[in-house]
Amino acid sequence: MNHLETLYPSILEAENTIRRYIRTTFLDYSYALSKQTGVHVYLKHEAQQHTGSFKVRGAFNRLLSLTSEEAQQGVICASAGNHGCAVAYVAQCLNIQATVFLPETTSSLKMDKITSYGATIKRVKGDCLQAELLARQEAELKQCVYVSPYNDPFVIAGQGTLGIELQAQCPEMDAVFISVGGGGLIAGVGAYLKSVNSAVEMVGVWPEHAPTLSHCIQANKIIEVIEKPTYSESTAGGLEQGSITFEPCKSIIDTHILVSETEIASAMKLIAETETTLIEGAAGVAVAGFLQKAKTYQGKHVVIVLCGKNIPYAQFKEITT
Amino acid sequence: MNHLETLYPSILEAENTIRRYIRTTFLDYSYALSKQTGVHVYLKHEAQQHTGSFKVRGAFNRLLSLTSEEAQQGVICASAGNHGCAVAYVAQCLNIQATVFLPETTSSLKMDKITSYGATIKRVKGDCLQAELLARQEAELKQCVYVSPYNDPFVIAGQGTLGIELQAQCPEMDAVFISVGGGGLIAGVGAYLKSVNSAVEMVGVWPEHAPTLSHCIQANKIIEVIEKPTYSESTAGGLEQGSITFEPCKSIIDTHILVSETEIASAMKLIAETETTLIEGAAGVAVAGFLQKAKTYQGKHVVIVLCGKNIPYAQFKEITT
Repeated sequence: MNHLETLYPSILEAENTIRRYIRTTFLDYSYALSKQTGVHVYLKHEAQQHTGSFKVRGAFNRLLSLTSEEAQQGVICASAGNHGCAVAYVAQCLNIQATVFLPETTSSLKMDKITSYGATIKRVKGDCLQAELLARQEAELKQCVYVSPYNDPFVIAGQGTLGIELQAQCPEMDAVFISVGGGGLIAGVGAYLKSVNSAVEMVGVWPEHAPTLSHCIQANKIIEVIEKPTYSESTAGGLEQGSITFEPCKSIIDTHILVSETEIASAMKLIAETETTLIEGAAGVAVAGFLQKAKTYQGKHVVIVLCGKNIPYAQFKEITT
Repeated sequence: MNHLETLYPSILEAENTIRRYIRTTFLDYSYALSKQTGVHVYLKHEAQQHTGSFKVRGAFNRLLSLTSEEAQQGVICASAGNHGCAVAYVAQCLNIQATVFLPETTSSLKMDKITSYGATIKRVKGDCLQAELLARQEAELKQCVYVSPYNDPFVIAGQGTLGIELQAQCPEMDAVFISVGGGGLIAGVGAYLKSVNSAVEMVGVWPEHAPTLSHCIQANKIIEVIEKPTYSESTAGGLEQGSITFEPCKSIIDTHILVSETEIASAMKLIAETETTLIEGAAGVAVAGFLQKAKTYQGKHVVIVLCGKNIPYAQFKEITT
């Protein structure tokens, strides 16, 4: 498979490049979920990664690939969420100037977080797409590197390092559940795991309200999909035309699952109750996908990636009441 | 100092013995708490240790010190809380039979957790002291090792390995805040840290409702202190006569702080809001102690040990509303 042949060495290279900057997050056997479902359930606590999501893996790999001229120019991204936090944090660690474009509707909580990592914030009239557009324009104007949240080979390779950890922590795994947005995480993790163990099943999970990449794969081309608001803010949004995640995701994702908002909320609550752990909606998506199909994994070893925890606690409580 | 001279090498030995079984838990710089207080605040996420508390460190060190005859006989402990979970988990890892004595009032949630680690449960009429008494009798009768939660040199040395991690993760620390029950954790951590850096201030924090060891140190002898119910269940309870933690704690704890139940609840809520992390009452005690005295640590580097997360989520919500 072509994508594996290209991605696998780039992930090994990323591992060498970023390992000393990132955490090997813990994998917990969940006694509670295992007992409840009859499946051996392992939770990958990637929400404990720096900044509270896996996004720093890709951001480190991208920013560590800059030439010294590029680094001196600073980088630009557009994101009110985990990618924005990650780029800001990584830039601070590497002493690079970062500018993060945000829609003006962004909550002060998220702005505070990004500001605390030392990034410059530019608030933009309009929505996320508008912020992205202006960020790209600014990057072109200033000859800066624009850091994409998923449409970048360095970013995908960086996210793939999570797969290296999983293979070491749980070599017996039969399936991995990952929530999918732009597809960078599942492409990277799947490419690594399938290269070392072709039998591993990669399960992609989407909110019914935000299934863009799943619909694109079904249509066999990148199309526009009308999405509705979802608790999984981190995975919502359209897929960029020509995104390099499309082809690898098409061949790597074995199973597609869609989950309702009610299922996401229940999953988030369940993890709080059984693991005393708070997760954001995007992580709830992967748990919900597993719970929906648990019956078909009886006796198997299943990993669920808890990809992030960036949600205000008040919102968590409201969603899970 | 005599206690340091005895404890320091035993902690290094514990490190060698237990390292491959335990986690180096993450230390997070808290941007939110640092900004709020003007102190450089680091949170030691020991609630992410196996079983959700630091107790496995001591339990591993104790059980790995058993002779093969002792190991074959199995071990006995009395605890409805973190110590019970830790002994059960460690025994399972090491293929040793564990029996945990519990008061009959123990919630099914905690029993489930201890059972899931494969331990035998004996429910006892009466309270925790009654459970401990019967556990000790049974241990004597069956010639089994009784594993104390704190009154054991192997247990103290095991807890001390957390200090080794802290020294590596935050060599610039000026003070460490730890909630105190039987004193095993602060004795071990303090003994290590003061051996390598005598300037580190060890701050012990107690609930006003359960200040036994603090009162004992003031009285310069082990006395009975009448306690009231507290959110910090894990640190509550009297101190055993002749406890070997008493003398080291007397010389190692530089500062004593008492916190109210309201302060504990506020601290638990604050950590959920700023770190998206759930902690139990005992961890809230240390955070509350820091917040009470933050003004006196301006510009300093302070570590707060979040010692555990074993609290039902419903109870967490009730406490923090």
